[in-house]
Amino acid sequence: MTTNSLSEHQYVLTLGCPDSTGIVARLSTFIAELGGWITEAGYFTDPDSGWFFTRQAVRADSISISFAELKERFGAVAAELGEDSRWRIWDTSRHKKAVILVTREGHCLHDLLGRVAQNDYPMDVAAVIGNHDDLRPIAEHHGIEFHHVPFPKDAVGKRRAFDQVAAIVESHNPEAIVLARFMQILPPDLCEMWAGRAINIHHSFLPSFMGARPYHQAYKRGVKLIGATCHYATSDLDDGPIIEQDVIRVSHKDTPADMQRLGRDAEKVVLARGLRFHLEDRVQVHGNRTVIFE
Amino acid sequence: MTTNSLSEHQYVLTLGCPDSTGIVARLSTFIAELGGWITEAGYFTDPDSGWFFTRQAVRADSISISFAELKERFGAVAAELGEDSRWRIWDTSRHKKAVILVTREGHCLHDLLGRVAQNDYPMDVAAVIGNHDDLRPIAEHHGIEFHHVPFPKDAVGKRRAFDQVAAIVESHNPEAIVLARFMQILPPDLCEMWAGRAINIHHSFLPSFMGARPYHQAYKRGVKLIGATCHYATSDLDDGPIIEQDVIRVSHKDTPADMQRLGRDAEKVVLARGLRFHLEDRVQVHGNRTVIFE
Amino acid sequence: MTTNSLSEHQYVLTLGCPDSTGIVARLSTFIAELGGWITEAGYFTDPDSGWFFTRQAVRADSISISFAELKERFGAVAAELGEDSRWRIWDTSRHKKAVILVTREGHCLHDLLGRVAQNDYPMDVAAVIGNHDDLRPIAEHHGIEFHHVPFPKDAVGKRRAFDQVAAIVESHNPEAIVLARFMQILPPDLCEMWAGRAINIHHSFLPSFMGARPYHQAYKRGVKLIGATCHYATSDLDDGPIIEQDVIRVSHKDTPADMQRLGRDAEKVVLARGLRFHLEDRVQVHGNRTVIFE
Amino acid sequence: MTTNSLSEHQYVLTLGCPDSTGIVARLSTFIAELGGWITEAGYFTDPDSGWFFTRQAVRADSISISFAELKERFGAVAAELGEDSRWRIWDTSRHKKAVILVTREGHCLHDLLGRVAQNDYPMDVAAVIGNHDDLRPIAEHHGIEFHHVPFPKDAVGKRRAFDQVAAIVESHNPEAIVLARFMQILPPDLCEMWAGRAINIHHSFLPSFMGARPYHQAYKRGVKLIGATCHYATSDLDDGPIIEQDVIRVSHKDTPADMQRLGRDAEKVVLARGLRFHLEDRVQVHGNRTVIFE
Repeated sequence: MTTNSLSEHQYVLTLGCPDSTGIVARLSTFIAELGGWITEAGYFTDPDSGWFFTRQAVRADSISISFAELKERFGAVAAELGEDSRWRIWDTSRHKKAVILVTREGHCLHDLLGRVAQNDYPMDVAAVIGNHDDLRPIAEHHGIEFHHVPFPKDAVGKRRAFDQVAAIVESHNPEAIVLARFMQILPPDLCEMWAGRAINIHHSFLPSFMGARPYHQAYKRGVKLIGATCHYATSDLDDGPIIEQDVIRVSHKDTPADMQRLGRDAEKVVLARGLRFHLEDRVQVHGNRTVIFE
Repeated sequence: MTTNSLSEHQYVLTLGCPDSTGIVARLSTFIAELGGWITEAGYFTDPDSGWFFTRQAVRADSISISFAELKERFGAVAAELGEDSRWRIWDTSRHKKAVILVTREGHCLHDLLGRVAQNDYPMDVAAVIGNHDDLRPIAEHHGIEFHHVPFPKDAVGKRRAFDQVAAIVESHNPEAIVLARFMQILPPDLCEMWAGRAINIHHSFLPSFMGARPYHQAYKRGVKLIGATCHYATSDLDDGPIIEQDVIRVSHKDTPADMQRLGRDAEKVVLARGLRFHLEDRVQVHGNRTVIFE
Repeated sequence: MTTNSLSEHQYVLTLGCPDSTGIVARLSTFIAELGGWITEAGYFTDPDSGWFFTRQAVRADSISISFAELKERFGAVAAELGEDSRWRIWDTSRHKKAVILVTREGHCLHDLLGRVAQNDYPMDVAAVIGNHDDLRPIAEHHGIEFHHVPFPKDAVGKRRAFDQVAAIVESHNPEAIVLARFMQILPPDLCEMWAGRAINIHHSFLPSFMGARPYHQAYKRGVKLIGATCHYATSDLDDGPIIEQDVIRVSHKDTPADMQRLGRDAEKVVLARGLRFHLEDRVQVHGNRTVIFE
Repeated sequence: MTTNSLSEHQYVLTLGCPDSTGIVARLSTFIAELGGWITEAGYFTDPDSGWFFTRQAVRADSISISFAELKERFGAVAAELGEDSRWRIWDTSRHKKAVILVTREGHCLHDLLGRVAQNDYPMDVAAVIGNHDDLRPIAEHHGIEFHHVPFPKDAVGKRRAFDQVAAIVESHNPEAIVLARFMQILPPDLCEMWAGRAINIHHSFLPSFMGARPYHQAYKRGVKLIGATCHYATSDLDDGPIIEQDVIRVSHKDTPADMQRLGRDAEKVVLARGLRFHLEDRVQVHGNRTVIFE
């Protein structure tokens, strides 16, 4: 086992199932029999639910069978370990597809596309969708198609806009739908359709300051730290499973506008870290909590 | 102006009043005319209310008049600057008196008395009061009187206990009443009587997880950081003006019991910093926010 | 006094001179007599050298005289306060000119230009100069001229390249020369010519790991935190006055390549913060230390 | 697998050996065959040396054989996996013995004994040894024997003092020798005798500011963060394997005395965390680096 980088070609196996004695032995024997050289392994059992989670990365060139066969056999092992088992397998040479949703503030989009350009992420951005047209140049500079879907204020118009967004998103069948400061509340059916794929960045340290204008709320309450939270979007607004959080220090001198400016650095970094965990299959959702194999 | 330590004998002047042009000139001329050598100065005007705040430390030996006379003259200047002016003056050679309230968990008491023993604080602890007797040995080891005031569960008994606590506290007329993990909710009349003097440490990053068992709430919500908040106690539970906050990182592996253990380090440090600001007259309360001249 | 944002039109006065009693009164009276409404003020006296520093921001519309006259009068006051006095005055409506030097790694350039595009900084970037051509597209996307100045390996060729860089830089007479991961060591004469203007980001927590390949050094030493340092470039390599620093946590699992990736976030943020302090005249250099009025 | 607390009775197995395919399977099958319920497991292979490390905690009541037999069998497995294998096994119901060495500054001693009193650590403190007598009351308040061993300035006297310290330490055969701000440089033979057991707290972010008076060095260099480092003592002064580090922010206003005061909080917390890792068998030394299973 080595490192948390994915520079080498690897297969990443993740599994969640009820815990039982010998489960680690079962899995590691399975991998050993295929000649698998494990480069990274994480294990966790939730004491409350007795549910077991693991993530294992093996060197692709150490496995004696094809990826397709590995997938089939791993699925069989997983099924053995419980009928509710949830498992995934990922060939790291395959980039994951993402669609990014934005409004007007560009710092997160800018930062994410910069990381993609630097090959920091196993991710291809298929499209950027904005409910305003402002950020088109950033996307197009990176050679990524940009869709402007205006959002009217009335319910019917808004619903139609969401349908349009959903159609574009689904045409790409993305594994990550990144709400990079997208200032529209997703309707429940989209949350459901995108469950476990839609990643939001909220500009507060949740559960503090849910909802609108969190920096103004923070200013009013007089907190000494502001924060950002990256979480999966669910139909309960700002209440989805948290992937990553961080804070930065403020003082009485900082107005809501100052906090907005300072907070951008936290938002960028927290979204970038959370998205990385998601892309590298490091996150497993369990109820409203996340298990993260860093 | 120099440093934020108080190793030298100083006079500390603090003032809050409506802002006006020339106010800094008025104050600094006042000090200059007395020969005052300013070692530290902070200024702030709240843009919303137009209220001005300052804290100035001058070397005691540079002032040509007595402390009593300085006090009288500074009061006159303050009065000139607005009839609602709030001002204080402190001779740093005089330690401030404190009473500490505790229940069973000793880490904050232990830490504070350790700091006092090390001469870290301009503070004398007059008494420790516990609603349990557990922490008596810590207090007595430091030569500080300990009062055990049991708190019955019934309203009448509890009220009587609070009266007893209040009587002990007031017999010392302390400038700081430190709730060092005191697990009883202060009644409104005590909050009022102790306004601006009662300092509480809450074991969450407020306004998240107000009320009881914040670590259990944090665990349930699946946050990735836990925190502590030092604030003035008011009759709105956990809603008083915040003096200091900090956070520490946790993961899915941490149970509420782990968070409790880890959180103690944040609680100790945050209370210690907040109390220092209070003792050194660095805090001015303005509405529900604090101006802190670090 | 209000806030650390510069959203309003202000004049920023900075001064360093020998300390003396009454100096704050002298300055604040000077400002008050012109009707100046101070929005932010910082003071500091270095206890070792007895040198006094201040930074004051006043609302431009509160000053009864022209900027030119204010400058002249402030200069006269400064001269009065000591013949070695160092003072500056800045009209915040005037953006400062910057030239950015880069090599191949684009994350800092990318981040800085993103901030400029968002109007985060009172800065215009006149040119980007690279000793490789790789980052030309980023600059040109932002409409900024890019100069490719190849650096040969031989001393004569390198010197000629530096002369060419210096010529481009000086043609713009910039107030900030930002070495945004510029992988060439500046010759002493350039350091001198650019003293107090050339800002470097070093990818370690200085003074740890000076010189080449700091992440490899950090890995070898087995540290648990890596860092970044923003400092003024001087002829003593990596030894100039430090403006800002920060760290991030690493573990035994992180290879030098991981550290490089993780460290980029620290580099970006630390450079961005340090540069902001510089642009807003918040930094005063004193010997090899900096006084920073945040 | 569950949690990083050690509230339940567990056996902790640690192993370091050359990596090979199937090693995880070998170990987990070994545990599974004994009925072992793994509550926590960490794995790491160092990519440079190809050395494999693991730490596994199993519920004591799930193991079908005696601790003595488990120890014997685990030793046999370890031996199989390489003749240079290093392994340990620990019954968490057995506290580890520690001796603490101090000089005059009491904050770390105070903090550690507070944690012990709170049952935070699986540790019994057998003795405190001071080269000054100042901290005797703290030790004795906790009912721990205190030995005052004066250190003369001359080499012979100093050597004799070290021999005396060594005799007291060895009479307890401790698993942790904690240098809690012990201001004497250990001679090489003691370093060797105590290798992997002597834990030092250095008041800087190593490798910055090795040797004497690190806060004065930090002040002189003008750093914006100061730190503390917990490491194993070796004969290369301040150069032993690092267990834990942290930093806190300082500014130009902070004198060396301020840094000393502020730094104490970092020292306490970093030593406490590092010592916990050591006591819970979470640290494995590999060359001059440490693998830490948090």
